[in-house]
Amino acid sequence: MAETVVTRWKCVCAYDGTDFSGWQSQPGKDAIQDSIEARLGVIFGQPIRIHGSGRTDAGVHARGQVFHFDAAWRHGPAKLHAAMRVTLPRSIQIRRVRAVPEAFHARYGAKGKIYHYHLVMGDADPFRRRTTWTIERSKPLDVEAMVVAAAALRGTHDFAGFAAFNGTERETTVRELRRLDLKRRGRHLRWEFEADGFLYKMVRSLMGALVAVGEGKLTLDDINRILTNPLRTAKVPPAPPQGLFLERVFY
Amino acid sequence: MAETVVTRWKCVCAYDGTDFSGWQSQPGKDAIQDSIEARLGVIFGQPIRIHGSGRTDAGVHARGQVFHFDAAWRHGPAKLHAAMRVTLPRSIQIRRVRAVPEAFHARYGAKGKIYHYHLVMGDADPFRRRTTWTIERSKPLDVEAMVVAAAALRGTHDFAGFAAFNGTERETTVRELRRLDLKRRGRHLRWEFEADGFLYKMVRSLMGALVAVGEGKLTLDDINRILTNPLRTAKVPPAPPQGLFLERVFY
Repeated sequence: MAETVVTRWKCVCAYDGTDFSGWQSQPGKDAIQDSIEARLGVIFGQPIRIHGSGRTDAGVHARGQVFHFDAAWRHGPAKLHAAMRVTLPRSIQIRRVRAVPEAFHARYGAKGKIYHYHLVMGDADPFRRRTTWTIERSKPLDVEAMVVAAAALRGTHDFAGFAAFNGTERETTVRELRRLDLKRRGRHLRWEFEADGFLYKMVRSLMGALVAVGEGKLTLDDINRILTNPLRTAKVPPAPPQGLFLERVFY
Repeated sequence: MAETVVTRWKCVCAYDGTDFSGWQSQPGKDAIQDSIEARLGVIFGQPIRIHGSGRTDAGVHARGQVFHFDAAWRHGPAKLHAAMRVTLPRSIQIRRVRAVPEAFHARYGAKGKIYHYHLVMGDADPFRRRTTWTIERSKPLDVEAMVVAAAALRGTHDFAGFAAFNGTERETTVRELRRLDLKRRGRHLRWEFEADGFLYKMVRSLMGALVAVGEGKLTLDDINRILTNPLRTAKVPPAPPQGLFLERVFY
C-alpha cells in the first residue's frame, strides 16, 4: 500500500456569526467550528479537528478567521477548496485554502490581529441590525472626545481593566495596541483595532469604554486611570457582539 | 363629548423581508403588515387596518414602502412616529410619518415605483446572502449582452410575458418601463427599474430573463419576441426574492 502523506492545510474563512453560538465547539451548541468539522468529516471519511486562530463569541463575525487542520489529500488545494464549499451553511464562506509547513499553527503562530467594530449613530437600519451596533439617542455621541481617548489607548499597556476573565487565565495582560483608528462615513463609524494579540472581550470592552466617553459617562482621565492601575476596570458594559468583525490574522 | 377628528396618516417604511411571509396579511403567516397593525392596535386601543402601495413577496425587501391608515391622534406626527417605533421588530423601520388629505391612497394614488435588484457574480458573501442574488458559475455573465437586452425592454410594452398571474387579473398588462439601468461596482450589479406600475413578479421575471441572456440561454431576439407576442412567456425562472428592494413609490 502506498504511504498516505498527511498535509497541514491553512484556511481563511468568513462568517456571519449572528445565528451561531460562537467559533468554538461546545456541547449542545451550534458553533462555526462544528459546521466546518462536519463538512471535513464527510470529505475525509473520518473526524477532522480544526484549530482556529482564537475563538470569537456568539454573534461576532469574521472576514478573515484562520484555521488549520491535518489531512491526507492528493488532489491539490483548489479541489479541496471546492469540496469544502459544498453543503456548508451559506453564513460560512471558505475564502482560501493552501498547504503549509507542519510548523504552522493557526493559534500559536499568530503575530497580530485586526478587528473592526461598526457603530451607527441614529435610527436603526433594518439591513444593518445584524452587523452594527446602532446607538439611538437624542444627543449625538461626542466623537472628538472618543478620538482623543482612542489615542490614549494606543500603544503598549496592561489592558486588564479592559477585558473579561474566565478565572483560569494566568498569562500577561500586557498587549501592544498598534492601531485604533476611526474611519467615518456620515453616521457610520468604523473603529479599526490592531494588536499583537487581544485579551478576552478586549475589543468589545474598549469599544464600550469609548462609547461611554462619547456619552460623557467616562472621561479621558478615567481611561488613563484604568490603563495605569490594572486593578480598576472600565465598569461599563462591553459593546454588543454584532458590531465586531475579526478582519485579519498575521503570521 | 368632543368630536374625535380622524386623520389619514401616510407612512414610509423599510424592512428586511428575509424572515417574513411577505407584506400582506395571510392567515397563519407572519406578514410585515401584521407586525405594523399589531403595534398600531396597541397605540390606538382598537384594530387599525393599514393599506400598502402594493404587496411584496416573501423574502423581498423595502427601503421605501408606503402605507396609509386612518386614526384619531392629537399629538402630532413626531410623537406618533416615536410611538410606532417602540416594540416593532428590528427588521422593520418606520422612516416617515405625516398627515395627508383624505384623498390620498397609498395604492390607488401611486403614479410610479422604483425597484432595485442586487446581483453578485462569484463566490457567495456571507454578509450579502440575505440581500443579493449570488450567481456562482465558472463562466462570468455576459453583462454587455444583458445591457443591450435591458435597452430593448425599456419603454411601453405589454409585459404579460414577464409576469406571473394569479388567474383573477383582468386589467391591462401594458406598462411603461421608464428606466432599466445598471449601476456596476466590480462584481456587484445593481439593476434599477422604474415604471408607472409593475405586474405581479414583473421585476423578478425581467431579472431572470436578463440573467438568462447573460448566461447565453436567451437571445435579444427571444426578448423581442416575448415583448411583441404577449402569449409567449420568458420561460425562465424568476430571479429569487432576496435581491429585490422596493426603493420608492411616487404619488
